[in-house]
Amino acid sequence: MPRYKLTIEYDGTPFVGWQRQANGLAVQQVLEEAAAPLGCRLNSLRGAGRTDAGVHATGQVAHLDLVKAYRTDSVRDAINARLAGHPVAIVAAEIVPPEFEARFSAKRRHYRYRIVNRRAPAALDAARVWLVKRPLDAEAMHAAARHLLGMHDFSTFRDSECQASSPIRTLDRFDVTRVGDAIDIEVSAQSFLHRQVRSMVGSVEHVGSGRWSAADLKAALDAADRRRCGQVAPAAGLYLERVDYPVNPA
Amino acid sequence: MPRYKLTIEYDGTPFVGWQRQANGLAVQQVLEEAAAPLGCRLNSLRGAGRTDAGVHATGQVAHLDLVKAYRTDSVRDAINARLAGHPVAIVAAEIVPPEFEARFSAKRRHYRYRIVNRRAPAALDAARVWLVKRPLDAEAMHAAARHLLGMHDFSTFRDSECQASSPIRTLDRFDVTRVGDAIDIEVSAQSFLHRQVRSMVGSVEHVGSGRWSAADLKAALDAADRRRCGQVAPAAGLYLERVDYPVNPA
Repeated sequence: MPRYKLTIEYDGTPFVGWQRQANGLAVQQVLEEAAAPLGCRLNSLRGAGRTDAGVHATGQVAHLDLVKAYRTDSVRDAINARLAGHPVAIVAAEIVPPEFEARFSAKRRHYRYRIVNRRAPAALDAARVWLVKRPLDAEAMHAAARHLLGMHDFSTFRDSECQASSPIRTLDRFDVTRVGDAIDIEVSAQSFLHRQVRSMVGSVEHVGSGRWSAADLKAALDAADRRRCGQVAPAAGLYLERVDYPVNPA
Repeated sequence: MPRYKLTIEYDGTPFVGWQRQANGLAVQQVLEEAAAPLGCRLNSLRGAGRTDAGVHATGQVAHLDLVKAYRTDSVRDAINARLAGHPVAIVAAEIVPPEFEARFSAKRRHYRYRIVNRRAPAALDAARVWLVKRPLDAEAMHAAARHLLGMHDFSTFRDSECQASSPIRTLDRFDVTRVGDAIDIEVSAQSFLHRQVRSMVGSVEHVGSGRWSAADLKAALDAADRRRCGQVAPAAGLYLERVDYPVNPA
């Protein structure tokens, strides 16, 4: 049973999210069905990030076990051929040791959040960005987000349905940059709570619009109280970009 | 009758192109209908670039005359409100002198052509790029394209239905750059022949795949013969990005 690591790109718009659910089509399900002829069993494909409905990925990582050792290019091409019609693609397939676990071996997850900051609708990227019409001060957002870096109790930025045993996480990066109308936010940590990125982005947006000061953001974090979250940014702007693993994943 | 300059973004996928045609919906038509309540008359909206079916724009420019002087922000927002449901948006509106003519006043047009060079389908950008599966040498493409710069008879790279009176054009820029799987080509000139960008990109792709040498590309140009065009690159990868005008457009 050789284990494969898959790097996966998808448009999250038509899916209920990464994980199988009763109420619609999940990315995991579409991939498992496409990989079934290679011997992939139901619920055997595990992803590094359980992205929500509407959230995209350019570098989601999953592992799966196949009944025999196929060439990695054949695995990639065979699954892609059966994914036709779904906006999901295997970008790369590699053979990894049996200890490799996409979720638990991950050292760091990197997300990007894309805002378009202008009055006009986003004609080319409608379901791919958060359109914010009020003017945002990206430098103020970046400066305020310094308060979020490091190890904290992130209860304020954690969905009420989050199942993690601890609200403590260590945030390594929260960089806000503007190029013209586009504001990109790059966020990295070993792991995140449920909806943590969107909850932090929504709250930092309040700083950008002038509704909150940097001190208000810090106070919201320190309160460790979900009711102090500013707002949850829409799923459409979020992308799982990359997952890092130890060089020797054993 | 004040004249307005509009900067326009659109996803070209659902349209027959910029210009009105009998066989489907054109971007020009959708815009004129949205601007009609402001006094824009049929066929009065003129664009700088008559993009083909499936070609996108992030910075198309058009002018139109309205019955009275509205605030520029009101013109932008009123047209955008009536464009809902179409992937077209007015990014900016400005008042310009009556001599301003979007097509004939243009000093330079800037296009971008996006290639994704990998085996895996483009899940996020399916109708937005040309997916080329064979490996391409972007540096060889860039080097060969130096032959295209300057003033030439571009008959080889001109659609047989092109209505321009002369095949002579001056190409200012044809830069090919690769970042990971993405190859971007930036092309600039005062004006282009019909399908010139896609014909040049398709032929330069032959250099990238090793099918043509740089000398083959030059020989194709020098032949000034449409039958020597390598191939026409798909519409989906092409974007009209910017149109430059004289500072004083009179």
